Amino acid sequence: MKRRKFLKSIGGSLTVSSLLISSANSATQKNQYKWKMVTSWPKNFPGLGVGAENLANLINKLSNNRIKVKVFGANELIPPLEVFDFVSNGGAELGHSGAYYWKGKSAACQFFSSVPFGMNSQEMNAWLYYGGGIELWEKLYNRFNLIPRPAGNTGVQMGGWFNKQINSVNDLKGLKMRIPGLGGEVLSRAGGVPVTLAGSEIFTALQTGVIDATEWVGPYNDRAFGLHKAAKYYYYPGWHEPGPTIECIINKKAYNLLPEDLQLIVDVACKAANIDMLSDYTAKNNLALQFLKSKKIEILKFPDEVLLKLKNLSKEILVEISKSDAITQEVYNSYSKFSSAVSPWTKISDKAYLDIR
Amino acid sequence: MKRRKFLKSIGGSLTVSSLLISSANSATQKNQYKWKMVTSWPKNFPGLGVGAENLANLINKLSNNRIKVKVFGANELIPPLEVFDFVSNGGAELGHSGAYYWKGKSAACQFFSSVPFGMNSQEMNAWLYYGGGIELWEKLYNRFNLIPRPAGNTGVQMGGWFNKQINSVNDLKGLKMRIPGLGGEVLSRAGGVPVTLAGSEIFTALQTGVIDATEWVGPYNDRAFGLHKAAKYYYYPGWHEPGPTIECIINKKAYNLLPEDLQLIVDVACKAANIDMLSDYTAKNNLALQFLKSKKIEILKFPDEVLLKLKNLSKEILVEISKSDAITQEVYNSYSKFSSAVSPWTKISDKAYLDIR
Repeated sequence: MKRRKFLKSIGGSLTVSSLLISSANSATQKNQYKWKMVTSWPKNFPGLGVGAENLANLINKLSNNRIKVKVFGANELIPPLEVFDFVSNGGAELGHSGAYYWKGKSAACQFFSSVPFGMNSQEMNAWLYYGGGIELWEKLYNRFNLIPRPAGNTGVQMGGWFNKQINSVNDLKGLKMRIPGLGGEVLSRAGGVPVTLAGSEIFTALQTGVIDATEWVGPYNDRAFGLHKAAKYYYYPGWHEPGPTIECIINKKAYNLLPEDLQLIVDVACKAANIDMLSDYTAKNNLALQFLKSKKIEILKFPDEVLLKLKNLSKEILVEISKSDAITQEVYNSYSKFSSAVSPWTKISDKAYLDIR
Repeated sequence: MKRRKFLKSIGGSLTVSSLLISSANSATQKNQYKWKMVTSWPKNFPGLGVGAENLANLINKLSNNRIKVKVFGANELIPPLEVFDFVSNGGAELGHSGAYYWKGKSAACQFFSSVPFGMNSQEMNAWLYYGGGIELWEKLYNRFNLIPRPAGNTGVQMGGWFNKQINSVNDLKGLKMRIPGLGGEVLSRAGGVPVTLAGSEIFTALQTGVIDATEWVGPYNDRAFGLHKAAKYYYYPGWHEPGPTIECIINKKAYNLLPEDLQLIVDVACKAANIDMLSDYTAKNNLALQFLKSKKIEILKFPDEVLLKLKNLSKEILVEISKSDAITQEVYNSYSKFSSAVSPWTKISDKAYLDIR
């Protein structure tokens, strides 16, 4: 834009103009960054996939198309869980995913999305942006040639869909539930049978009784999957994922090739996408909840006894995994120190307010 | 940046180079927007003033200094409560303030910061970004030649500092409390005596007994004012301001003069500043709370009976002010419709989770 005006203002001889235009074209090509973004979600999947598109659009527009990001849904270029390795190896410049998928790289990754009975979205953002969280996350991903940025949040999720009622800890025994990650580990210690299934397989497994229960996300996403047609009871709260951060990972070499203003554009686009996705989820979850209520779904709260049991098991597991490696210990220490300090504030601010509203 | 590389790549004769450089300078001047930002806070005041500086820096850096914003603290250029008129009249291109200060323009303004027993920050953002809130805000400010953007949030505030205990509704009778706006109106209907004082006058008034109580913000800001040295009891929750949105107002003419990418840069910088300020407050409130606890402050919850009374009075007042003018009625309808719909979701997500964590 600036250069075009500038060229116009020259008005020199044809030779000078030609020289300028030819240089300008090569400069344009030289300075345009054609980037790929691979994601762990189906193209335009509500909330998550839409968030990836929004982020890419923001980067394109903020940079006046100096960066041009093309988004690939899950399986368009690579399977959903190869995002980390693919961006790490430079196959794409950007990835849009969740850090807990990479626990195989280090158990520490899980603290950068969400852990059972951990911090909610507001607290996570405070830790990441103002409590040293991002710096630790960068340290962890640096060895993989990646730069991480928070780029979204689903908010507190739901506890899941059940075809049998959970009235006591005993009802968890033998419960076949689709619940991945640390949540699954907690369920297993409580006597349940965690099952891993891809999103696309959940509906049929639940409907045919292969599983008794499943967690997914919350009303907005669950409605899209039609889970209310396959289960009787919708439980809350989502103790296992109390506000997962969605990550944007950036190939470090690609990032370092950008001029400083474009690096900042990528960073700030991620920050804006972070609040944007949570706002989208908050608005849409509420509409979807109204829809689900109209379908006469029974919405139930887990009994306190059950939640207390799950909470104690969660704490036990977090302490155990903190010992996996040095960086996990460091991340765990920072996370739990911040969490213990912020939770008395949350209690007299957000919680106390919601209690009396 | 792009142009500099381009000039280097030309390598023409001295005449051509001189021509280019002289045109480049004039192009730079022509395309640089020197903007002023006036604010309602002291320069670099914790949270709010820092938020204004952060926003200005973001705009400068994202635009690669094509926009250059200079920030003025309260009273540096104009008094704190003249921000709206000054930006409206084109004295500055940007203002950083809170919409409830402009209730004299229309009662509707108050719904764009915070109203007693209203939505919290997460819900407000959902309404503003995905519930039609910003569109209504734009409609309201359009007649003043202004474009509004959410640009920060303090989170749920504290109830305030008291030198007498509040054990029943009766204890509010005759209570002289510094509490402006709708909160003051509610207190007045409950039998109290709301007092308006500038921030700088609060400490002495509280210490000398001119007032019995004051609200301010929360631990982070209250500690900076030393209010714990002037009062015995620190009450929660801040029923009157459950997460005020901080606004950035933009002079419409100035905004329309920007190329599209710079307009977006201003918009997105505001969005990033929004989540950034809340994260700053969440992290710092928690540290300040620890400090205040170490000073043996008594931290007390308002009795339920008192909160119920204040809640009922608040609802009554909101209905009354909704009738002020057509736009206030429209804003009130949108706000209360969204609020009623989102609150069942908040109840089974955030509230239910915080209850059991």
